[in-house]
Amino acid sequence: MPKQRDDCLFCSIVRNGAYVHKANGFVAINDINPLAPVHVLVLPERHVDTFREVSEFNAREAKRMLEFVAETAEKVGLTDYRVQVNVGAGAGQTVFHLHWHILGGGPEASVEVPAAVATAEIPDELDR
Amino acid sequence: MPKQRDDCLFCSIVRNGAYVHKANGFVAINDINPLAPVHVLVLPERHVDTFREVSEFNAREAKRMLEFVAETAEKVGLTDYRVQVNVGAGAGQTVFHLHWHILGGGPEASVEVPAAVATAEIPDELDR
Repeated sequence: MPKQRDDCLFCSIVRNGAYVHKANGFVAINDINPLAPVHVLVLPERHVDTFREVSEFNAREAKRMLEFVAETAEKVGLTDYRVQVNVGAGAGQTVFHLHWHILGGGPEASVEVPAAVATAEIPDELDR
Repeated sequence: MPKQRDDCLFCSIVRNGAYVHKANGFVAINDINPLAPVHVLVLPERHVDTFREVSEFNAREAKRMLEFVAETAEKVGLTDYRVQVNVGAGAGQTVFHLHWHILGGGPEASVEVPAAVATAEIPDELDR
């Protein structure tokens, strides 16, 4: 088992979870509060706080992580889907163990970027 | 130069673009229609249609791609940000050359998943 942290929720889930998929150092679980018809999280067994530290993965792990995300989407029946990583508290990351969201199965997937982002959040100087 | 396609917009941009960042087989450009205060796209020079084919990258390229995304976010001044890949037409992918969105710089980054997804799009059987 790679480096883990005793006080990390996702390290605990990696050890004892109800997995959608598990292979070679990665697990996938259903999001406990699904925000799309299909909403799965991919967790590396290795504890890395955020995507900022993604260089902590070696080349084999990096390739495996990307493949595992694509494999998991296929395994849960998605062809078209959104892959999302929230980096840092200011971006909505609530558990500081790097994880990938896979969202799909509904019309929301057809929106490139949510309307709320496209309208309300852009400062005046960029509002064109 | 890795495998490219003559008819691909992003292969063309990879060869002749105004880069935010460029290194080791990857380039970053500003999104032509920014949907957040900072909205950058990361493109691998190698043409791969979608994230579904992510296994076409070798281990070194996979690691480099992830590091390049994190590096680019740092380079454009983001600490907290969202990383997003839209996979397939049904998920809003409009250019079929794998690309990574980096979105940040505004309060939208604090939303784990957009409200529009959280409310309107979930079928009745999941509406709990």
